[in-house]
Parts: sequence; C-alpha cells; structure tokens
Amino acid sequence: MGIEDNSEFMQALSKVRHDIERGVYLPNEKLQPLYEFAKIYQTSQEMMRAIVDQLVEERLVTRRLGVGVFVNPKPIYSSGIEELGSVSEMIKKAGKVPGTQFVAAEIVEPTKSDYNNFNYSDLKLIARVERVRTADGEPVVYCIDKVDNDVVPVGHIHRQDSIFNLIHTITGKQIEYAHAYVEPIGYHDKISQILNCSPDQSLLLLRQMHYTKDDEPILYSENYFRSDAFQFHVVRKRM
Amino acid sequence: MGIEDNSEFMQALSKVRHDIERGVYLPNEKLQPLYEFAKIYQTSQEMMRAIVDQLVEERLVTRRLGVGVFVNPKPIYSSGIEELGSVSEMIKKAGKVPGTQFVAAEIVEPTKSDYNNFNYSDLKLIARVERVRTADGEPVVYCIDKVDNDVVPVGHIHRQDSIFNLIHTITGKQIEYAHAYVEPIGYHDKISQILNCSPDQSLLLLRQMHYTKDDEPILYSENYFRSDAFQFHVVRKRM
Repeated sequence: MGIEDNSEFMQALSKVRHDIERGVYLPNEKLQPLYEFAKIYQTSQEMMRAIVDQLVEERLVTRRLGVGVFVNPKPIYSSGIEELGSVSEMIKKAGKVPGTQFVAAEIVEPTKSDYNNFNYSDLKLIARVERVRTADGEPVVYCIDKVDNDVVPVGHIHRQDSIFNLIHTITGKQIEYAHAYVEPIGYHDKISQILNCSPDQSLLLLRQMHYTKDDEPILYSENYFRSDAFQFHVVRKRM
Repeated sequence: MGIEDNSEFMQALSKVRHDIERGVYLPNEKLQPLYEFAKIYQTSQEMMRAIVDQLVEERLVTRRLGVGVFVNPKPIYSSGIEELGSVSEMIKKAGKVPGTQFVAAEIVEPTKSDYNNFNYSDLKLIARVERVRTADGEPVVYCIDKVDNDVVPVGHIHRQDSIFNLIHTITGKQIEYAHAYVEPIGYHDKISQILNCSPDQSLLLLRQMHYTKDDEPILYSENYFRSDAFQFHVVRKRM
C-alpha cells in the first residue's frame, strides 16, 4: 500500500485533475516548477511528484525529462480504426475546417512495393503527391498519395482536397475499403518538423492500399497522424 | 522524371535489395559508409545515396542521422489488430518460445481510470503486475496488467505466463473481446531501455480493457510492442 491510500493525496490529486479538466491550464501549457506547483495546492513537493506521476498515467499531462510537465491537448478526432474515411471527412467530423498545403506533386517510376500494391503488370508511371492536411489551419496529418498516372493524371490532383472525391469524379469508381498497416513513428526528420511536433511527440503511420468494391487497387496512401490530434480505437475479438 | 528512370540505377538498386533480402547483411547490421558501399556495387556515391533513399522508403533499411544505415529486422509477428490473442499466443504463433520476466507486482488503490474501466462501484483494490515478455529470450513486449484483487489476488499472478489462462483457472471466466486504444510511443524513458530499443526505435502501445462474453470488465492491460518485432494490420471499410 503506497502513498495512494493517503486521503490528503487523493484530495490534492482530484483538485489538480479537476483544474486541468476545466481548463485552468491550457493544452500544451507548461506547468510551474514542482516546488511552486506544490505550493499552489498546499502539498509537499514529494506528494506533488506522486500526483504528477498519477496524472502522467492518466494521460492528462506529459513529463519531458529536463524540460518540464505539459498539459496534454485532447485529441480532436477519435474513431474506430476499422472505419475508413478520407482525411478531409475525419477533420470535418471533428467540427474543424480541413485545408491542404501542397508539398510536392511528381511523376515517378513505380517502386517494387508499388508493383506489389497495385498488382497489375501494365503499371507505367505513378502520380505521387505529398500534402499537409490542416484542421482549422493547424497541420495535423502528412499524406503521401500514389495513383496510377494513366488513371488519375498528376495534373488533376491539385484541383480537389479529397483524393477520394477526385478519383470518383475522374473514374466513376468509389473507394470501398483499404488494407492498412499500423506503425508507430517516434520522430520523422522531415515530417515531424512540418507538423510542428515537439521532439517527443510521436506519429501514427497508416500505410494503406485502397480498393474499389470490385477489389481493384486504386490508391496507395501513407498518412502520418499527429498522435495528440488523432486517436484510434478498435474492438479486438478472440478468434 | 527523376534519377529513377535510369536503368543503371534500377540495376544497382535491385542488386542491393536482393542482397539484403537473401541475408548478405544481417538484421540490425550497420552498412558500410556510403563511399565504401558505393564501391562494392560499382556506383557513384550520389547514386548509392538515391538507392538508400529508395530502400528506406521500402522499409528494408533505416537511416539514423549521424550514425549510419541499418538493415531492418523482419517483424516476427504480423496479425490483424482486431484479432485478440494473449501475448503468449502471439509469440507462439510466430514460432518462438514465450518467456516472462517479472518487474513488479503490487496492490494499489484504483485510479480514476480504473474506476471508469472496471465500471463497478465495489472495486476496492487493484492487483497490478509489470512484466517483460520475451520471444526466444529476447524482450519484445512490456505488459502492465491490472485486475480486481478480490477476483484475482496478486499472489496468484506469478504462477502462470498467461493472464488469460490464469483468469480462466481462477474464475472459470473466459476473455472474449477487448476495447483497445492504439497509440504510438516514440521513446519511453523506462520501457524502451528495458526492451533494448535504440533511441529511434518506436513502440506501439495498446491500452485495452478486456471483457467476458457477458460484457463483464475483467482485465486492463497496457502492452508496449517493439515495432520491429510486431506488425499489425487492419481492413478499414467505408461506413
């Protein structure tokens, strides 16, 4: 039985927790140094350290070694990972306005993975687009999209925010499902900087091949989601 | 049209790729410095840099800034994220022998999240266990498990590797499904070290509440998977 069964501890803990939840401290705000923070809540430094431990476990704050303790922002978007939506749709669902910053658009030779993913032999050139997707102007997702340039020529991709809609407009085909790999990314030299991530802010990468209802492979995407903005959940069942 | 449509490039690329795939370079092996590596394949340093770029994209190698280029190990385990198995089962499926190193076992007061997760008011004490799970002796998953100490007393948890089996033995109840949150972790001060991760090796955290077929919450787990050893995929469908 540790310090946790101390009612003074529980009372101070719930005061701090309540203050964070009702917004006394702002998302990403750095909390006062431990000795000052302890004074505010009239506890010892030792107890305040245990309180912060607990809040770290509850994911209300993050401790950055040698830097300080920061209030975690609430994710803007939480969704079942098995639900496929375009990034624009996900941002809209969260009540935010989606935007796009183009980083690059080019025509490239297919890589070995592209041949595997698109799985047809007459794949000649790939239209490859890199974009930053924003929510209310803030960068939250980095998207690398690849399509067969004979199906959706790269010049068309600038016209619309949603590649799902663009593919539908050009080909009449609708994306029905995707096979996705889920990968954690600690820090990406290029992408973390573009998404304004602090060094300890991680990304969730979904590498996904999209198919039409006739199982035709039509779009490959790598989406890097800022993990403080997007939260995914899943129901796992015993097989 | 970049350097990729150069047939010399494509030939050298496929030679290096082939050598990595057939095991000329071992998993986690550091490749020679660029100028030496270029010499071996009789290419220019510039072209070898483009080849390495491509192999990074194909996830065959990882570039650690200022350190070098390393061959990626193949994941030992790849599974649908919606399939719930115990960690022991997952390691066995990969043809490896699961093992356990106990880190801590203690009885603690429930946190606010515990009350939310277990969702009954007569929750008094939590049995909390931290373990390192190994595959053929190598640490691959860090597990924090919590159960109601009145249901599964903490003293019992040492006896068996699989908490799923232990819960079944003691209570007669079987775990049927879990609600899981999927979270990328860049570097965890404690856990990354215990799992022998290099600073750029990330972890996938599944925070999951397990239920019986009668929807009774029975086990809360946080599993930190080394991302080079475990790979998860999911089929995402349009709603």
